[in-house]
Amino acid sequence: MAGDVEKNLEALGYRLPEVGKPLGAYVQSVRTGNLLFISAKLPKENGRLKYPGKIGREVTVEEGKEAARLAALSVLATAKQAIEDLDRVKRVVQLVGHVAAAPGFLDAFDVIEGASEVFVKVYGERGKHTRFSLGVSELPLNACLQLEAILEVE
Amino acid sequence: MAGDVEKNLEALGYRLPEVGKPLGAYVQSVRTGNLLFISAKLPKENGRLKYPGKIGREVTVEEGKEAARLAALSVLATAKQAIEDLDRVKRVVQLVGHVAAAPGFLDAFDVIEGASEVFVKVYGERGKHTRFSLGVSELPLNACLQLEAILEVE
Amino acid sequence: MAGDVEKNLEALGYRLPEVGKPLGAYVQSVRTGNLLFISAKLPKENGRLKYPGKIGREVTVEEGKEAARLAALSVLATAKQAIEDLDRVKRVVQLVGHVAAAPGFLDAFDVIEGASEVFVKVYGERGKHTRFSLGVSELPLNACLQLEAILEVE
Repeated sequence: MAGDVEKNLEALGYRLPEVGKPLGAYVQSVRTGNLLFISAKLPKENGRLKYPGKIGREVTVEEGKEAARLAALSVLATAKQAIEDLDRVKRVVQLVGHVAAAPGFLDAFDVIEGASEVFVKVYGERGKHTRFSLGVSELPLNACLQLEAILEVE
Repeated sequence: MAGDVEKNLEALGYRLPEVGKPLGAYVQSVRTGNLLFISAKLPKENGRLKYPGKIGREVTVEEGKEAARLAALSVLATAKQAIEDLDRVKRVVQLVGHVAAAPGFLDAFDVIEGASEVFVKVYGERGKHTRFSLGVSELPLNACLQLEAILEVE
Repeated sequence: MAGDVEKNLEALGYRLPEVGKPLGAYVQSVRTGNLLFISAKLPKENGRLKYPGKIGREVTVEEGKEAARLAALSVLATAKQAIEDLDRVKRVVQLVGHVAAAPGFLDAFDVIEGASEVFVKVYGERGKHTRFSLGVSELPLNACLQLEAILEVE
């Protein structure tokens, strides 16, 4: 039986992606006490990287926000893999967004908002998190952004 | 009645800024257990961004250190908003400093020292934190730096 | 008497470096609850920075992986300083790798794998961590990479 959060996801038209295997000697999540750390997530759909390139050059802000939405859903899919039931997330604690920014592109901020909105829509008050975002020079696989998260879980 | 830490702040001539509203779907701080996570803080005075630009180009190292000091005070103001009494900070756990660096500028380190000094002056041994700092290509609003923190609180 | 982890280190031919003094008003590690936060570690050998420069320009990927290995050993040396016995590490929770990347260098990922492998070889399942890595424009002292970690300890 799907929990409340999964019903929300469905009502919002969000579909959780498959969680791929890590690309190296690390894991997708680690729980310590009530904190669940999630490894960097790239914007993928059906296992393929979406919107590669630099935001402000090959990728528009709107595409970047969509990429952030995909990466946020990947955070949730990873959390589900770890704790089975997404209702057991008590709080989204921290969200970190790294944006591959073309020189002079200052709106990493706007782009990562696409991820923040997912957590707030899905979890309401519990979804409100601390955040930092920044423009960096290069990301793995030429991804336009990368998202990390820390969740408090039951 | 002001606590000991607030008296220290006053004696040091530091004034806590107002905590602005978040610029998106996130919050300024989240507490989980005894950890208080603080969202990215920019160097502001009276609500206005100070020292915009790249350090090593538009902004000098001395101005950068002053910017780091302002961002550190904003961390403390945010903590006060969350826990009311700054005496309840038991330890400054981690400080992260992102510096908007002109190409070839290697001294992100020196700049973020301006923030570290605030915590150590105000809190003494309790203010000694782990830290990492780095030069990044672009920060929100063309800020010259951005500071994040994790505090242990009572 | 050396613990099991130190015996592993020796069998693997790894030697822990000395932990230098912090270069500013911060400390090498902070424990809060069962979490041990470790400050940024640079790739050093006998106290000297190794492989300075940008990866993809002055520094090859292979040299970068070796640099990541050195920084990982420095994380362990710092943990030992804090908790005395490396057997008391219950889990490597998070590893963050910042790589000074030449423009267009996309393989920060491969480089930081050199650090991940150390933790997994030394700690086995307990060494499997969450991770994020990214290319940044400038690091302190012209280092080619910088590593931060959070460990769960007894």
